[in-house]
Amino acid sequence: MNLRVRKIYEALFALEDLREIFRQALPTAAATGTATTAATGTALDESGEEELADGIARVEAILRELKYGKGSPIKHIDAEGRIELRTREEEFININSIQPGGRLTPAARKALIAYGDGYSVCDKCLGGRLDGIRKPPVEEFHAELAEFVGMDEVRVVPGARRGFQAVASSLLGKRTGEGTGKGTGKGTGKGTGKGTGEGDIVLVSDLAHYTEFLAVELAGGVVREVPSGEAKKITGDAVAEEVERVKSETGRLPKLIILEHFDYNFGNEHDVYGVGKVAKDYGVPFLYNGAYSVGMVPVDGKKIGADFVVGSGHKGMAAVAPSGILAVTEEWAPKIFRSSQIVGDLTGRRFGNKEPEMLGCTLMGGTLLSLMASFPTVKERVNRWDEEVKKSNYFCREFLRVAGSKISSELPRKHTLTKVDTRESFDTVARTHKRRGFFLSDELKRRGVVGEFAGSTRVWKFNTYGLNWARLKYLGEVFVEIAEKYGLVEGAGGG
Amino acid sequence: MNLRVRKIYEALFALEDLREIFRQALPTAAATGTATTAATGTALDESGEEELADGIARVEAILRELKYGKGSPIKHIDAEGRIELRTREEEFININSIQPGGRLTPAARKALIAYGDGYSVCDKCLGGRLDGIRKPPVEEFHAELAEFVGMDEVRVVPGARRGFQAVASSLLGKRTGEGTGKGTGKGTGKGTGKGTGEGDIVLVSDLAHYTEFLAVELAGGVVREVPSGEAKKITGDAVAEEVERVKSETGRLPKLIILEHFDYNFGNEHDVYGVGKVAKDYGVPFLYNGAYSVGMVPVDGKKIGADFVVGSGHKGMAAVAPSGILAVTEEWAPKIFRSSQIVGDLTGRRFGNKEPEMLGCTLMGGTLLSLMASFPTVKERVNRWDEEVKKSNYFCREFLRVAGSKISSELPRKHTLTKVDTRESFDTVARTHKRRGFFLSDELKRRGVVGEFAGSTRVWKFNTYGLNWARLKYLGEVFVEIAEKYGLVEGAGGG
Repeated sequence: MNLRVRKIYEALFALEDLREIFRQALPTAAATGTATTAATGTALDESGEEELADGIARVEAILRELKYGKGSPIKHIDAEGRIELRTREEEFININSIQPGGRLTPAARKALIAYGDGYSVCDKCLGGRLDGIRKPPVEEFHAELAEFVGMDEVRVVPGARRGFQAVASSLLGKRTGEGTGKGTGKGTGKGTGKGTGEGDIVLVSDLAHYTEFLAVELAGGVVREVPSGEAKKITGDAVAEEVERVKSETGRLPKLIILEHFDYNFGNEHDVYGVGKVAKDYGVPFLYNGAYSVGMVPVDGKKIGADFVVGSGHKGMAAVAPSGILAVTEEWAPKIFRSSQIVGDLTGRRFGNKEPEMLGCTLMGGTLLSLMASFPTVKERVNRWDEEVKKSNYFCREFLRVAGSKISSELPRKHTLTKVDTRESFDTVARTHKRRGFFLSDELKRRGVVGEFAGSTRVWKFNTYGLNWARLKYLGEVFVEIAEKYGLVEGAGGG
Repeated sequence: MNLRVRKIYEALFALEDLREIFRQALPTAAATGTATTAATGTALDESGEEELADGIARVEAILRELKYGKGSPIKHIDAEGRIELRTREEEFININSIQPGGRLTPAARKALIAYGDGYSVCDKCLGGRLDGIRKPPVEEFHAELAEFVGMDEVRVVPGARRGFQAVASSLLGKRTGEGTGKGTGKGTGKGTGKGTGEGDIVLVSDLAHYTEFLAVELAGGVVREVPSGEAKKITGDAVAEEVERVKSETGRLPKLIILEHFDYNFGNEHDVYGVGKVAKDYGVPFLYNGAYSVGMVPVDGKKIGADFVVGSGHKGMAAVAPSGILAVTEEWAPKIFRSSQIVGDLTGRRFGNKEPEMLGCTLMGGTLLSLMASFPTVKERVNRWDEEVKKSNYFCREFLRVAGSKISSELPRKHTLTKVDTRESFDTVARTHKRRGFFLSDELKRRGVVGEFAGSTRVWKFNTYGLNWARLKYLGEVFVEIAEKYGLVEGAGGG
């Protein structure tokens, strides 16, 4: 426990209490001099001023404790002790496989302080369109965002999965239910109105994330998994073969191809450019799943040949969950972002400025502002992706100094998410250790490292994204040191 | 502009910068004494210590300015000046019609500071189920939440609209697309696989929110609006009549009834108990839309006769957008929260612990934590609803002192959201004022009141929810004073 970190939290919380005083007070100071009512001057009422003075004194006291490293550390966000303080980004190096790209920037944390309240982004909404709001600059953000991923139009969505959902729902036949069926019996009879979309086929990878499956399931579709083969990498050829197979089996093309640039399991890079070409050749729409790339890796959707680019705010764009983006080409915008057509039978009401797949507005507060506030950093950090990959490879080399350890992901690494196999290294210790697999968690935590799957010493994952060189080198030392302690480094003595 | 409010923000932001120092540093202090590496002691490196000392001095300086009301006020959250500071809850009384129920509690703001990072709630997720996480106590929260609205099972969702979507998607035929078609041609041919769900009917109110329409549209359904009549209140009888009409016209019952307890337009109370009874009598599922009630008004879903209760986090539960809840009876849980059935054809992968309508996990970070942190306050505040209604009526009486003003909503008020008609009062001034309708906005803002629809002096809405008596009385004075200034109060002189 780091007392000083906790004093910073305590001071932040004490300031929130000060802020609350003004939220309950008359808007005295807000009336800037011209008010003709009681609202003149900047003073709170007597008890308010007293509360404020006490509160300031409290913050000053906490700052003194911070400065001199004195006092006791807070452990919860609430006096009742229900919710633990979360300090893993300040007190530890966090190597969790899904968290680092969503770590907030300081700008996002500040935006959240200012825009946390529910519908905070709607103060100056005039047209009932989130993406049309100019203050804060939501409209401008949308324009920049589309450009950032090399696409024409973009919407923010509550997580990448909601982007998959919108595309699958728009493209798969079951949702539209239009009838073109023919009778199968003898005679000349024709069926009326049956759905053509029954089980429309979507190609995904055999390493696809579960949310792609669910989006297809929800839209009434069926998945066909493209094999990643021994290399655990999806190629354009493999996708082309699967398209051919579907075509010859069903007489139809798949309705959609979804492929992640980097998969969640190995963090391997898949040939999205090759797949983009195959998709174009066959005329099958291609959804580029950038959950592990958008916001970290430079992405140019059109160059890739994608019709849709989906990114995750909380996984890759330093934003609050749930958030994400769905970007499309201008060709697809009228379909995915189509206007509502439904009409109230009694009132004749229509909602032509609302988009059904978005259900109207999506991220109306802190989630969006965190995306927007992090965006300047995010735009800049993708240019440092090569350095992130370099650090990832550096760390993997250190990790391999632990005798018996294997990297399950492709080498050299092309991503910061890596799967490792330590059955022949750390797990040999776990087999006889009284804490079993938790011995490794214990050793890591003792050295300020968290985020591995607690208790696992067999096959697990880590992600080094965003760690600076000092933290990264330290991380390498930690693993080697633990290995040395347990005699897992050649030439080193047991601990 | 309130200098002291802005100094509080400035101090909060400066503390976030301090926090960032630890996020970039080695986890020195985290290693609590037992570390065997370089990670001993609690010191940062030299430049870190220097940066920290400078940062603390900066916060101290800001606090002095806060104390003595000195210095210049910050205006943006970022140095580049892209995103304006949002201070309307501290510097003003905000009467916006949709915002007050989603104003964060201090506890939620603290939770957000600690849990803003992307996937922050997943640190100790073991089973891949958001509602199964015990630290922070997400599982416990879900149990309490179901009880809070008098239902059996609940999930958190990205906004009330996503709750409507899940129910409509589960219940309306088009989504399932099961075939029962017959050939219409000569011969013996039969069609295969047409959808039976074409245009399943959902009853909504003629005052229904657009998101209900979109959810029905997306699921391929059709709405039928139940008339609220002259009283602008939906009754059980009106719903029963519409059910009968649908039955006689189509030979089928509606698939779903959706009704809001209080509508977004007038804030009128609709007879949800009566509708609950009608729904039970006909055996039509009933979705209680609690966007304007859950978290503010006591709600007992089963007593109402609801099959589904939907609430909004950012509209009524003091939480970050997008957030909300979908609660169901145990009868419906297996249908709405059904497990994923899709199978990977190659890998045989299944996702039985994931729910397609939720797309797996929903609110994995700050949104959920804000809901959870506000929950103790929310549970308690619904018990003070009578007082809120009393304040609403008090303010309406004051408002009616403005000659020519009318309340369009039902009287006495049963909610804090109220629609008013000032065409015969403030609008008579606007017609000749050089600022037109903006004169009223100007006068309000000058007195520290914001949130009305800027520029509108005809038919508009306000919401007094959560204002304490001092603020409320002041608000009444403000309107009467403005009216007096423009000669809109009988017996008072013009300004």
